[in-house]
Amino acid sequence: MSNGDVFVGEIIGTAILILFGAGVVAAVVLNHSKAKDAGWAVITFGWGFGVLAGAYTAAPLSGGHLNPAVTVGIAFDTGDWDQVPVYIAGQMVGAFLGAILCWLVYFAQFQANAEEETAQPTLGIFSTTPAIRNPVANLVTEIIATMALVLPILAFGLTEGLGQSGTAILIVSFLVVGIGLSLGGPTGYAINPARDLGPRIAHALLPIPNKGTSDWSYAWIPVAGPLIGGALAGIVFTAAF
Amino acid sequence: MSNGDVFVGEIIGTAILILFGAGVVAAVVLNHSKAKDAGWAVITFGWGFGVLAGAYTAAPLSGGHLNPAVTVGIAFDTGDWDQVPVYIAGQMVGAFLGAILCWLVYFAQFQANAEEETAQPTLGIFSTTPAIRNPVANLVTEIIATMALVLPILAFGLTEGLGQSGTAILIVSFLVVGIGLSLGGPTGYAINPARDLGPRIAHALLPIPNKGTSDWSYAWIPVAGPLIGGALAGIVFTAAF
Amino acid sequence: MSNGDVFVGEIIGTAILILFGAGVVAAVVLNHSKAKDAGWAVITFGWGFGVLAGAYTAAPLSGGHLNPAVTVGIAFDTGDWDQVPVYIAGQMVGAFLGAILCWLVYFAQFQANAEEETAQPTLGIFSTTPAIRNPVANLVTEIIATMALVLPILAFGLTEGLGQSGTAILIVSFLVVGIGLSLGGPTGYAINPARDLGPRIAHALLPIPNKGTSDWSYAWIPVAGPLIGGALAGIVFTAAF
Amino acid sequence: MSNGDVFVGEIIGTAILILFGAGVVAAVVLNHSKAKDAGWAVITFGWGFGVLAGAYTAAPLSGGHLNPAVTVGIAFDTGDWDQVPVYIAGQMVGAFLGAILCWLVYFAQFQANAEEETAQPTLGIFSTTPAIRNPVANLVTEIIATMALVLPILAFGLTEGLGQSGTAILIVSFLVVGIGLSLGGPTGYAINPARDLGPRIAHALLPIPNKGTSDWSYAWIPVAGPLIGGALAGIVFTAAF
Repeated sequence: MSNGDVFVGEIIGTAILILFGAGVVAAVVLNHSKAKDAGWAVITFGWGFGVLAGAYTAAPLSGGHLNPAVTVGIAFDTGDWDQVPVYIAGQMVGAFLGAILCWLVYFAQFQANAEEETAQPTLGIFSTTPAIRNPVANLVTEIIATMALVLPILAFGLTEGLGQSGTAILIVSFLVVGIGLSLGGPTGYAINPARDLGPRIAHALLPIPNKGTSDWSYAWIPVAGPLIGGALAGIVFTAAF
Repeated sequence: MSNGDVFVGEIIGTAILILFGAGVVAAVVLNHSKAKDAGWAVITFGWGFGVLAGAYTAAPLSGGHLNPAVTVGIAFDTGDWDQVPVYIAGQMVGAFLGAILCWLVYFAQFQANAEEETAQPTLGIFSTTPAIRNPVANLVTEIIATMALVLPILAFGLTEGLGQSGTAILIVSFLVVGIGLSLGGPTGYAINPARDLGPRIAHALLPIPNKGTSDWSYAWIPVAGPLIGGALAGIVFTAAF
Repeated sequence: MSNGDVFVGEIIGTAILILFGAGVVAAVVLNHSKAKDAGWAVITFGWGFGVLAGAYTAAPLSGGHLNPAVTVGIAFDTGDWDQVPVYIAGQMVGAFLGAILCWLVYFAQFQANAEEETAQPTLGIFSTTPAIRNPVANLVTEIIATMALVLPILAFGLTEGLGQSGTAILIVSFLVVGIGLSLGGPTGYAINPARDLGPRIAHALLPIPNKGTSDWSYAWIPVAGPLIGGALAGIVFTAAF
Repeated sequence: MSNGDVFVGEIIGTAILILFGAGVVAAVVLNHSKAKDAGWAVITFGWGFGVLAGAYTAAPLSGGHLNPAVTVGIAFDTGDWDQVPVYIAGQMVGAFLGAILCWLVYFAQFQANAEEETAQPTLGIFSTTPAIRNPVANLVTEIIATMALVLPILAFGLTEGLGQSGTAILIVSFLVVGIGLSLGGPTGYAINPARDLGPRIAHALLPIPNKGTSDWSYAWIPVAGPLIGGALAGIVFTAAF
């Protein structure tokens, strides 16, 4: 695939991923939403089907990684690092744009929230926050959860060429739902540096009134954890398979 | 496909879609229903599996578009507009008939509702209403949500011929669930002009006692928004892929 | 397929279907169950995955109809009625046995229920009861809901040979979930004469203390409605496709 | 497949299964988890997608049994018992390791639980406990529920080679969700000796403060029941198919 196709594909696909993912959190937490308080199952399926929507769209152009941890894990497996920067650049731009799209979709809800006497903080719609703030434990959680994403993807590629089969991405989408259900409790499962950092930058820049803090002190964990987890998955895969 | 097959296929398929989609809202909001108050996940999966039921049924006859926004998006991509009016006509007739089928299935519940001292309005079973009434914001929401439907369908068609593969429609069904979960909060996600206008006409005509307003002042948004979104998706797809 | 294979296959498959289907209702309504009050989505997915479990098991022997309405609909389509009695006999025996299996799985819960001061009636675990008792409306609901099952199955067979493809039954399972979500509110969606009558006979015969009525006055509706619906689906299919 | 591949594959796959399965229970029951009280549907889908994650990862190495009951059922069918000990050894080691991984992911939550005045018992995160303690009834439940797992897997193998098809494991994953929804109410559905015994040993050994009893008096039932059920499924399958 050409660098241009990869860049455009990852931008479009990651934007769709974040539109769905940030969107479902907005749907559940903001007032005046028909999905208000719809619960954890709704959030995890929303993110999973965001992978489905984004990856199927990006597949013809870039294969649909949408996640630097996946890109890094594949690079450890194949030994081919040439296009890694193009992938990650596209993913970062796409994640940033997707957060803006989510804000547009829920514009009236964000405005209504800002006008409430006790406006709720909005960062949780864009980026992850831990349930218990404990850097070592949070980092370990993100490393293991990301390995649980990338290792199956690499192993699955032995049977089904990812991005070429009609059902490969569907299966990865349910895998992402499963990670959310099972491993999302402590940190909200970033498992993707672009998914967390791109929307956090958008949150910091967007003119949302009463938006609350962007919590930069935590921002390194959902970047470092997934990158370490993706690399470890690539190393384990190369050793064991 | 012949015009006759397309017309009949879209009527049957869209009628099934609306039977399921309006049905699941009736199931959740009407009293004396076993699914009363079953929540947002139930509504979104009911609509998604309505796509599954309707599109698999229509597929051998018409390919199973069931949605003018999809038909328009495909026409922008292929440049072939010949059968577009046939598709849309079938979709409108089918959506109207599907709403009547839903009313028949929940006939006793509609009657019981009408006899209650405070009969609830019934339009929400048939057509969409916004959580916050804001024409520009509502229109933007419908445009983006429809792009999030049509762009993946077009891109996915590059890998899997829609309507020919056994799993293509299944995947589109989960995509529709995802749009509901993530992007349905502000407007109830029409993302389909026929889905909203056909049942609204049925609501206006059906002899349901105490049925409440058909809210015609809002009716243009779930028609215009999805048509714009479908067209934009076709244009973006042609440019980027 | 030989008559012997069809008979054994439908017995095993329908027994598994009812084990899962009656099981999920027992799980949600009986006290001392870990799924107590888990809601309508759980019930509908339990029934849908019962179709998955039963039909995949029966598929190599009988194709996995598990439902006289499906068998009748297929016979109207193919014109071949030779094995219809064998199918229906197997389905009835299987449904009866499946109800007994469910009772064994939840034996301790049934006993505990009987010993409670206000033992709840148990028929709803085995067979359907309407939310509003209205024979004409209930019959119409069952007819339309069964058409919404059989028509997609017949149309889907044009694309994918049911019972031969790895994903055909998966898709039918989600179709059944969708019917439950969208059309199950008024009558509890029998959509299958064997599914309702077999377990009702088991309910009448099983030595469950304080089990309550078997409600024979309603029993004809979930038999007649699905048979009419299956036949109508076969006729519509033959005419339109 | 070589003994080494089978052993490594089953270790990795079963570890992932238990990481997801124990993880989703931790997510739902522990305080300071974003999925707290998310309900039975979340637990059953978490376990099902744990099968998906673990079995797709193990498939290229070992076929992805992850369960002695499945291994025994297949051995009864094929008559080939040579690698059964290797499979079971890998499954036991993997289940033990998966429980440790779950503890690491939820480390901060386990610590917070221990410090609460009324620390809740933690065994339910690792292993099953019955809703009503009745050895005979509990054993029967586990036998039937395991047959409902292994018999469809064996029959399904006639159509789709398990571990070779891209969708076979997806379908088995939904089968496991269905067993949880429908048959999990009485005992919490071990249906897998390694799934219960491995994490119980981990629970006994791990330095979790205030962890409560490991309940060894019940431990034989979720081992014996699934082994009997798997064997019976193999025997029924050989006789009927």
